[in-house]
Amino acid sequence: MSEVLVVGSLAYDSVVTPSGRAERSLGGSANYFSVSSSLFSKVRVVGVVGSDYSDSDREILKARGVDLSGMQVVPGKTFHWEGTYEKDLNEAVTLKTELNVFANFNPELPTNYKNSKFVFLANIDPVLQLQVLSQIEKPLFVGMDSMNFWIMSKKQDLINVMKKVDIVFVNETEAKMLTDEKNVIKAIKKVASLGPKYVVVKRGEYGSTLYSKTDGFFQCSSLPVESVVDPTGAGDSFAGGFFGYLSSQRVGVNATEGAPSWRELKQAVLAGTVMSSQTIQDFSLKALAKVDKPLYQKLSQELEAIISI
Amino acid sequence: MSEVLVVGSLAYDSVVTPSGRAERSLGGSANYFSVSSSLFSKVRVVGVVGSDYSDSDREILKARGVDLSGMQVVPGKTFHWEGTYEKDLNEAVTLKTELNVFANFNPELPTNYKNSKFVFLANIDPVLQLQVLSQIEKPLFVGMDSMNFWIMSKKQDLINVMKKVDIVFVNETEAKMLTDEKNVIKAIKKVASLGPKYVVVKRGEYGSTLYSKTDGFFQCSSLPVESVVDPTGAGDSFAGGFFGYLSSQRVGVNATEGAPSWRELKQAVLAGTVMSSQTIQDFSLKALAKVDKPLYQKLSQELEAIISI
Repeated sequence: MSEVLVVGSLAYDSVVTPSGRAERSLGGSANYFSVSSSLFSKVRVVGVVGSDYSDSDREILKARGVDLSGMQVVPGKTFHWEGTYEKDLNEAVTLKTELNVFANFNPELPTNYKNSKFVFLANIDPVLQLQVLSQIEKPLFVGMDSMNFWIMSKKQDLINVMKKVDIVFVNETEAKMLTDEKNVIKAIKKVASLGPKYVVVKRGEYGSTLYSKTDGFFQCSSLPVESVVDPTGAGDSFAGGFFGYLSSQRVGVNATEGAPSWRELKQAVLAGTVMSSQTIQDFSLKALAKVDKPLYQKLSQELEAIISI
Repeated sequence: MSEVLVVGSLAYDSVVTPSGRAERSLGGSANYFSVSSSLFSKVRVVGVVGSDYSDSDREILKARGVDLSGMQVVPGKTFHWEGTYEKDLNEAVTLKTELNVFANFNPELPTNYKNSKFVFLANIDPVLQLQVLSQIEKPLFVGMDSMNFWIMSKKQDLINVMKKVDIVFVNETEAKMLTDEKNVIKAIKKVASLGPKYVVVKRGEYGSTLYSKTDGFFQCSSLPVESVVDPTGAGDSFAGGFFGYLSSQRVGVNATEGAPSWRELKQAVLAGTVMSSQTIQDFSLKALAKVDKPLYQKLSQELEAIISI
């Protein structure tokens, strides 16, 4: 097993959904990713928090063995995102973004992080994504996420990152926005033509689509969920399960050398699907943090049964 | 192989989509169903047309071996539907419905139709659906479709039909409307609780979900389609492939006696998925009518590759 490194936001979120509201509860892409990924692998976090970041929130990651030596603590307030989901639970509406300590975030990797093999650049400024990636000595498999804000404001920087990664995670709206295509299949192919070997389009309750120029499509259903409480973090939980699974398949001295196979990537989609199905069933990381190996095995078997012909 | 019987509309459609328009071109649920189903099985049609119904349109079904002895021809004009699809290609907007000869349709089955084993009650007045079903001596497997119009205007009649069928086909909007549920998984379960053993929810570009109380869920992706020209008839083509496949599995003297297995039903979903993927790539029945066995085999293999883990 090799370590997974993630750079992203460590945040407090205020969220309103049809099921209720959560005020300044733990959130941020790196938190969701880490808790999800740590079920499978050792995880290293790169991020920044303010002096208001609580020990109990730090403990959620520590309890799952996550390495926090790359988490900077600086004077000021932690990044705060405020959002809502109305009828369409698939799409968040941002009401407020308070960057706070994130505004001057300068990601410097601890020396022992630089040999990381699996790297996930969560949704942050693409310039910072590149800055992190350039510090990794010899990554084996690199993924990235982004959002509409960066597609509109820093599209060229974003495309520069896309040229350097193995896999890009987007949702349907982002894929269409990035490529000026209305048809999602055309959009996926165009995203792949920008550089990455693989593209994952996250489609909320409809599951996800993995694509590569050489292997074609893999479509995976979601797990049926009867009560979606808060979709925040579903995408990062998906990516966390995806990368955690891939990393867990690299055991032994030379095992970090081979790139993941198509079959491993499909299995990684299943792992991501299971993890994200839990995140959305409660606010913040509450439901996700409860996923242990036995629950994961049970849900994996359910998912396999649902998609097997 | 046993015969499939379908009752439904034989129509001329005028359709506007983002790709263009088609004026008074061949349509109607029974036409889409029959052309699709006839790739697998012998099909018997029950329906009504006016004196304006052209021989060349009749020929499209005849060329595929469809039995038209249950097609009534009466003085007057054929049923005409006018509809449009705007941005959301998953949902039709009805602009005009001219029932014409359909207004006084009194479905009487030819004697030789009455031993049909597989029966599909396409989207027509639920009172007529029951009238047809009551004329079948000993059906093995019965399915039905409907639409928002009947859910709003004849809900109790519709539920009476649902109690007598094995499988109900609905789209997501219909499932939610029928059950007053916002969550589609809850809606599916509620539809099943109304009587049918199986429910299929058609989800457009996202594929479909098959559900039964005893076997749980099967989720099937759609085939990736880069250019959706006209979604009209996709649902009936799906049902046609579904029933045609099931019927084709019943070969031999006593083979009509056993109800379809869960595995056969899943395979039937795949068949329906393949057929509907073609329908949407051109107006009217143009693309669907071109599907032959070799194309079907090729597309089936593509679909299996896309969903296999």
